[in-house]
Amino acid sequence: MGLPNNTDLLKRRLPTGEKNLITDLDGIRVGHATLHQGDIHTGVTILSPRENIYPNPLPAACHVINGFSKPIGFIQVDELGTIESPIGLTNTFAIGTLADGLIKRVVKEQSDVNQQIGSFNSVVMECNDSYLSDMKSFPVLPEHVTAAFDDLSIEFLEGDVGAGSGMVCYGLKGGIGSSSRIIDIKGKTYTLGCLVLTNFGQPDDLILRDRLDLPANYLSKDQTGSVVIVLASDAPLDHRQLKRISRRAQSGLARTGAYVSHGSGEIVLAFSTDRSSDRLIDPDLDRLFLATVEAVEESVLSSLWHANSVVGYHNRQVLALKDVLTP
Amino acid sequence: MGLPNNTDLLKRRLPTGEKNLITDLDGIRVGHATLHQGDIHTGVTILSPRENIYPNPLPAACHVINGFSKPIGFIQVDELGTIESPIGLTNTFAIGTLADGLIKRVVKEQSDVNQQIGSFNSVVMECNDSYLSDMKSFPVLPEHVTAAFDDLSIEFLEGDVGAGSGMVCYGLKGGIGSSSRIIDIKGKTYTLGCLVLTNFGQPDDLILRDRLDLPANYLSKDQTGSVVIVLASDAPLDHRQLKRISRRAQSGLARTGAYVSHGSGEIVLAFSTDRSSDRLIDPDLDRLFLATVEAVEESVLSSLWHANSVVGYHNRQVLALKDVLTP
Amino acid sequence: MGLPNNTDLLKRRLPTGEKNLITDLDGIRVGHATLHQGDIHTGVTILSPRENIYPNPLPAACHVINGFSKPIGFIQVDELGTIESPIGLTNTFAIGTLADGLIKRVVKEQSDVNQQIGSFNSVVMECNDSYLSDMKSFPVLPEHVTAAFDDLSIEFLEGDVGAGSGMVCYGLKGGIGSSSRIIDIKGKTYTLGCLVLTNFGQPDDLILRDRLDLPANYLSKDQTGSVVIVLASDAPLDHRQLKRISRRAQSGLARTGAYVSHGSGEIVLAFSTDRSSDRLIDPDLDRLFLATVEAVEESVLSSLWHANSVVGYHNRQVLALKDVLTP
Amino acid sequence: MGLPNNTDLLKRRLPTGEKNLITDLDGIRVGHATLHQGDIHTGVTILSPRENIYPNPLPAACHVINGFSKPIGFIQVDELGTIESPIGLTNTFAIGTLADGLIKRVVKEQSDVNQQIGSFNSVVMECNDSYLSDMKSFPVLPEHVTAAFDDLSIEFLEGDVGAGSGMVCYGLKGGIGSSSRIIDIKGKTYTLGCLVLTNFGQPDDLILRDRLDLPANYLSKDQTGSVVIVLASDAPLDHRQLKRISRRAQSGLARTGAYVSHGSGEIVLAFSTDRSSDRLIDPDLDRLFLATVEAVEESVLSSLWHANSVVGYHNRQVLALKDVLTP
Repeated sequence: MGLPNNTDLLKRRLPTGEKNLITDLDGIRVGHATLHQGDIHTGVTILSPRENIYPNPLPAACHVINGFSKPIGFIQVDELGTIESPIGLTNTFAIGTLADGLIKRVVKEQSDVNQQIGSFNSVVMECNDSYLSDMKSFPVLPEHVTAAFDDLSIEFLEGDVGAGSGMVCYGLKGGIGSSSRIIDIKGKTYTLGCLVLTNFGQPDDLILRDRLDLPANYLSKDQTGSVVIVLASDAPLDHRQLKRISRRAQSGLARTGAYVSHGSGEIVLAFSTDRSSDRLIDPDLDRLFLATVEAVEESVLSSLWHANSVVGYHNRQVLALKDVLTP
Repeated sequence: MGLPNNTDLLKRRLPTGEKNLITDLDGIRVGHATLHQGDIHTGVTILSPRENIYPNPLPAACHVINGFSKPIGFIQVDELGTIESPIGLTNTFAIGTLADGLIKRVVKEQSDVNQQIGSFNSVVMECNDSYLSDMKSFPVLPEHVTAAFDDLSIEFLEGDVGAGSGMVCYGLKGGIGSSSRIIDIKGKTYTLGCLVLTNFGQPDDLILRDRLDLPANYLSKDQTGSVVIVLASDAPLDHRQLKRISRRAQSGLARTGAYVSHGSGEIVLAFSTDRSSDRLIDPDLDRLFLATVEAVEESVLSSLWHANSVVGYHNRQVLALKDVLTP
Repeated sequence: MGLPNNTDLLKRRLPTGEKNLITDLDGIRVGHATLHQGDIHTGVTILSPRENIYPNPLPAACHVINGFSKPIGFIQVDELGTIESPIGLTNTFAIGTLADGLIKRVVKEQSDVNQQIGSFNSVVMECNDSYLSDMKSFPVLPEHVTAAFDDLSIEFLEGDVGAGSGMVCYGLKGGIGSSSRIIDIKGKTYTLGCLVLTNFGQPDDLILRDRLDLPANYLSKDQTGSVVIVLASDAPLDHRQLKRISRRAQSGLARTGAYVSHGSGEIVLAFSTDRSSDRLIDPDLDRLFLATVEAVEESVLSSLWHANSVVGYHNRQVLALKDVLTP
Repeated sequence: MGLPNNTDLLKRRLPTGEKNLITDLDGIRVGHATLHQGDIHTGVTILSPRENIYPNPLPAACHVINGFSKPIGFIQVDELGTIESPIGLTNTFAIGTLADGLIKRVVKEQSDVNQQIGSFNSVVMECNDSYLSDMKSFPVLPEHVTAAFDDLSIEFLEGDVGAGSGMVCYGLKGGIGSSSRIIDIKGKTYTLGCLVLTNFGQPDDLILRDRLDLPANYLSKDQTGSVVIVLASDAPLDHRQLKRISRRAQSGLARTGAYVSHGSGEIVLAFSTDRSSDRLIDPDLDRLFLATVEAVEESVLSSLWHANSVVGYHNRQVLALKDVLTP
């Protein structure tokens, strides 16, 4: 969804895709399992890059802006330049459960169609939702991984859903955000999409800060947060080019105010849905670079825009942007 | 244990530690959970760098020789330059189970002593034992993680034990190997220790090949394997210096014959048990570099030396070095 | 100098140093050799991190935002974690001349005091000034390297001087810019300083674009430019920490509007003037990270603020910010 | 040339190319300018990857084994994944002169055919020959760069020639070495070639040490040396694949005995002469990996094999392998 078309919270130089979601890219689906109950505000989000990605990997690359983060699968993605796994997002203490769920699911899928699976590189990323959720009670169970897969769809919610249920961004309720951009390169039209899991920044960092009506002394939280950024495009790109694209995500984050604090794990995974042997020439990447910066910026703001205020663990309250934004 | 003192399988320029094991380093313990039964030849190995590593991390660094591998925790170790987790080794499909076990164990330990644990970076590494073990039946369970911790000791077995139970190296039975070296730097004595999990190489690659009495057409396996290398020293070293040390491991592997094949994930984790703010000056690293190369070489050979022949999954037989080495 | 204290072109959260220049750091000096004549608008800028850096290197790190750039010396700075050379900036085709000048100067200095110099790692960085200057006529000569050294001072000019003489930034006259920030960490006061050589961006990228009175169809130049960023601090920091600081520079660039285009080589070198064995703990880096982002942003704007309009090669005109900024 | 076919100094599993030189690859030529006179034993070696590489770059990648080295051009080769420059080798203090020579030569060549040259990324690598040569007298002049270009040929000498004139390897006279291997991949025949500049290692490191008749207390030199490795293949390879190949060079060095000492800058540049958009699939790289390890090993030994004993600076004598090898 991103932000409304008439928003004044950001300027767009490139047009958005039809849904203004990463699912504007053909084949991509997103599903959530959301846990909002008492002290628990967490969940799982699955992004499926396309059907049958396991035996048919896609070009991919990873980038670490600030490695205070626990991703699984990055080493092999960068060695082989491909991704062969659905992308799973969850809380910091659930990465083992989620990786195990991905591995067992893909092994079963392959066995069901009598295909060999000699190895498998699962991809999992996380943010720390322990401010709003009792992460130490290990609420994410294997059944929630299954539920997120069952929810896969080209339509999906943003804000306090799935892995984003308990996340906090710039002191406001964050979580899942998404956006997309359309670009033309030499007469061909391509889409670049972004999905983020936002859990970073202090209120004073936010560039929109002056437009917020926050209570005095709002949010003493100085925990560190993190942000996960997934980028996808149908442009024909190889690993090295996707790496270059992924490095531009930092500039998109900066547009919202972030300075990449010590404790904020900020990581990026980029893939192309085109597995042909074609590829663009590098000078043509500039439109994709600009699209990346814009889509990351809008995805972050969209995660704030769509979230709802939440009262969670230890009765901590985190306000939604919509509840504090002065018109 | 390494190799016998009078071996002619390698030349040592530096003296070994007392046990010729990574546990020659004060505070390090190793434990195994070993599963040898029918189609299952796998397990878990835990290396505990020292007591209470969680709130008291150690200087550390990672290095990827060939990233066809699925380690967990490397990104944060390299960002912060520290390790805060016991190191877990297992088979490729058990990394989620093992990471989950590490996370839950450390969270419980901290809760038991009323300590905060806001986040935690588990460290897990793997090799693929599917040639000898039915990896797709997911034989590694949470109880095996516990069992490996319960087995932690300064004495430990090498060869076909723990995570090494089902591994194959140069077409021979591989698995866990370890060695150590003693060095003097400016009048102070330091130890460098190595532990490997070997699952790489073809018979023809092995430099000792001419001394093996292998059946004709032995081992059609051309699967790819992998090798995990853990290095430790009590020398005062920072992250950058440990990174430099970890990069020398490749030279140690090469001494046994390896050329780092495409499918052989080869990764290194190095840490110092000295968490003082001291550190060596770089020109003094040379003895540590040589110790690294020698200890890696001997650890690999030791994994072969101590292993037993195994008949496993699909009745595949892998011979032990001791059963084919011509005197 | 940075921008005037009462500027509304940026917001400062941290106080600037006394001069608001990188020379607010004790021991740092900057010197220019400036060539403005006919078709030639180029030069050399030298930043001396401190006296006698050769036998007494400083902790340092490099970071590549976008490697379409030809720096000299980065590989060794990152291996050893130190810098032992004055930092030289010039145009793309003069890097050999400048490196040669640095090498010969340091060798002579050491010989003059009867000191050994077995090796030496010169540090040179460049941007491409061929839009305004006839770079292919190789106007930078060894004598200009000497002249820049002779000009070393704690006071120095910004804008179209030294290596910045012919640079273009956001379609405006760019060049040399500098700024500094003061931070407190646990009761101690530190300075972080920045010096940039700006030659990147298109007019439409600049966030201040709406406040510029540019002629219609101004500047068809779509060459790619580049930017060099030098960061320095007197905080006790090791290589890994300086690497973390250097990675934040991208966020500072983004605040001015940049999206890191394909052809824009964007590189960072950071060093500490404290060569004690002390160092900060990582959580205390956050103030330095924020200072980095602010100082980079202000340095870029300062390079525009202090530049003068130039008519150069092929009678191309590039306007100064001061000549087009609408009050 | 490499070693004689009937040598027992190494085992070859793959066949060599016709000349057993990197010039077995179509289009590659090598030229030397050699300075042997009094206190001066140095020079320049140029490797031309093919005609007109400037406007027509080739796929390329760099790898740093140990970054105590001063290469020029690596940052951009790795960003764009291409090389556009002849490769220049010389002594440590001559890198500026050589880079300047490359830049001016390519600019002139392009101007002579009325082609634009907006930018240019020269590639220069070095080793330190100050043990045998008075490097501080700056003997390499622009005319020597020209002379090396004039000498370009598919036939070239190894040993104490060109940039190798004053180099010392394992305490013996080293310098330029080369070798090649032929491999078959899916019915197609490819060549991999290697050229090295050897200046590393101590006599005791050399695996052949026991076969050398060296005087007692031979060579007190404990300077650090370095080694430069250039790899080329006509196989269709992209940047990521060439990076993987370049990382195997360390294993080739290790076969001769090296453990990568602190002061030994060890760097690799790999390129493909195939600039089509084809590329191999990664599992097919294994033959290239083995070819790399073998060609690096043989190139190092070949640099020793072809060198002559030299008496140089301060009357230091370095013996040739041929003069100390016991039959």
